Amino acid sequence: MKKILIIGIGAGDPEYVTVQAINAMNRADVFFVMDKGVAKAKLVELRKDIIERYVKERDYRIVEATSPERQRDAASYVDAVETLNHEKQAVFERLIGEELRDGECGAFLVWGDPSLYDSTMRIIEAIDESGRHQFEYEVIPGISSVQALAAKHRVALNTIGRAVEITNGRGIAEGFPKHVDSVVVMLDAQNAFRQLADEDVDIFWGAYVGTEDEILIAGKLREVMDDIERVRAEARARNGWIMDTYLLKRRTQPKD
Amino acid sequence: MKKILIIGIGAGDPEYVTVQAINAMNRADVFFVMDKGVAKAKLVELRKDIIERYVKERDYRIVEATSPERQRDAASYVDAVETLNHEKQAVFERLIGEELRDGECGAFLVWGDPSLYDSTMRIIEAIDESGRHQFEYEVIPGISSVQALAAKHRVALNTIGRAVEITNGRGIAEGFPKHVDSVVVMLDAQNAFRQLADEDVDIFWGAYVGTEDEILIAGKLREVMDDIERVRAEARARNGWIMDTYLLKRRTQPKD
Ligand SMILES: C[S@@+](CC[C@H](N)C(=O)[O-])C[C@H]1O[C@@H](n2cnc3c(N)ncnc32)[C@H](O)[C@@H]1O
Ligand SMILES: C[S@@+](CC[C@H](N)C(=O)[O-])C[C@H]1O[C@@H](n2cnc3c(N)ncnc32)[C@H](O)[C@@H]1O
Repeated sequence: MKKILIIGIGAGDPEYVTVQAINAMNRADVFFVMDKGVAKAKLVELRKDIIERYVKERDYRIVEATSPERQRDAASYVDAVETLNHEKQAVFERLIGEELRDGECGAFLVWGDPSLYDSTMRIIEAIDESGRHQFEYEVIPGISSVQALAAKHRVALNTIGRAVEITNGRGIAEGFPKHVDSVVVMLDAQNAFRQLADEDVDIFWGAYVGTEDEILIAGKLREVMDDIERVRAEARARNGWIMDTYLLKRRTQPKD
Repeated sequence: MKKILIIGIGAGDPEYVTVQAINAMNRADVFFVMDKGVAKAKLVELRKDIIERYVKERDYRIVEATSPERQRDAASYVDAVETLNHEKQAVFERLIGEELRDGECGAFLVWGDPSLYDSTMRIIEAIDESGRHQFEYEVIPGISSVQALAAKHRVALNTIGRAVEITNGRGIAEGFPKHVDSVVVMLDAQNAFRQLADEDVDIFWGAYVGTEDEILIAGKLREVMDDIERVRAEARARNGWIMDTYLLKRRTQPKD
């Protein structure tokens, strides 16, 4: 039997790694590290640092594979992600079939927490259900960028007794969701927060949270959104890529 | 200057503790442990185990304080929580004023992640803003019960490209929120999921997740809800208390 571990490593700071994740990494014979081109080289680097830092007195192999990229010009986002996941599945199947021997343990290190906007669990489940490979698998949670952001801003996600929505740039572009007063936005490449400029909302924004490049900006959306847009563009140009997340909180309830 | 650390310790398994939390605990001179009566004795116990397990070669004091309890018969939930937080603030102010010396570091260990349905950050912020005590404070994220639940069920919170709502029992009792297909429910004392029996929904339920008493049940809501209700009542009777969380996922989109 082969064993696969899907390990959340936290969303930036190597100290976000949990004791459970460290113990799991120390069971792995092979680490599968997915390379996504120059822009994401830094994230591959961070994964390798984490392996080196926490895996002690154990022989392991690191297998790098090139991760397929999403078609940015595809008609539908969901179709594009599904196509991408099929391609990823083929890569993962090859890794499991050819790079992991029977009785060995292979680990996928997932950025942040595996349960949030990450396809690793879905892909491994699909491979498992296909019946083409025999393995057991386990998932280890990690600190997501959402929690890292809240901790750095020292702000709770929810207001007392109320709900929080976690969405993406496309979701928030449709407007502030009704019936919630707190929204976390991930995967927003278009400064979609600008479309809420007329709402009475606070924003808690963070880029590269937990890393040495971390930038935090908070305030009334209307007053800080130009700053955020400018700082974001500069940081993206400087680093060649960006990862940012923000929490929006209504200051007053709208009349329905 | 005094220093206060609000440290997320994860939602059950002592191995959910992060390296950052361990390092933070090793800076503390005083741990404030809030006791909430017999039912929560186990959670106080778990905090002390975590301190003993991870704090090395350092003298520290543990100060226990009785946490005020929410009035369960109050007219409004939000009012009751706000009153409770005022009472808690008075307790916290006493701890900071009398139990923490200048130049010392005090730590509050928060169950799960401090950003989710927890009042510690709000209370410390209110004390800070009152100007009555001089201190610096920092927040360290932890693995929330939401992530622990998802990892144990090996299920992603969101479906591809879609949003997730995190709500409480009161929130879900108003019906499955529109415009999202995934909902996490915490703090549900009333089996509110029963009210969604007519919806085409999967449930991923977990109690005491990450502890030795962990129970997981998943399936079509309609098919497993009686089991969950029964198992939940039995576990609660056996242990004298329960903490459970669940993820609901629509199987099909409703026609609006
Ligand atoms: C594909 S999702 C993966 C999320 C990840 N599984 C998690 O738990 O954070 C990538 C998005 O996460 C957010 N993100 C990840 N790491 C971040 C960080 N260190 N700072 C800010 N945002 C981050 C950004 O919104 C980015 O677009
Ligand atoms: C006051 S909230 C605190 C949540 C905590 N800050 C977190 O991040 O998980 C308490 C609720 O969290 C959930 N919870 C906490 N720990 C849990 C566990 N180990 N298993 C299942 N649910 C848990 C339950 O819904 C419980 O009613």
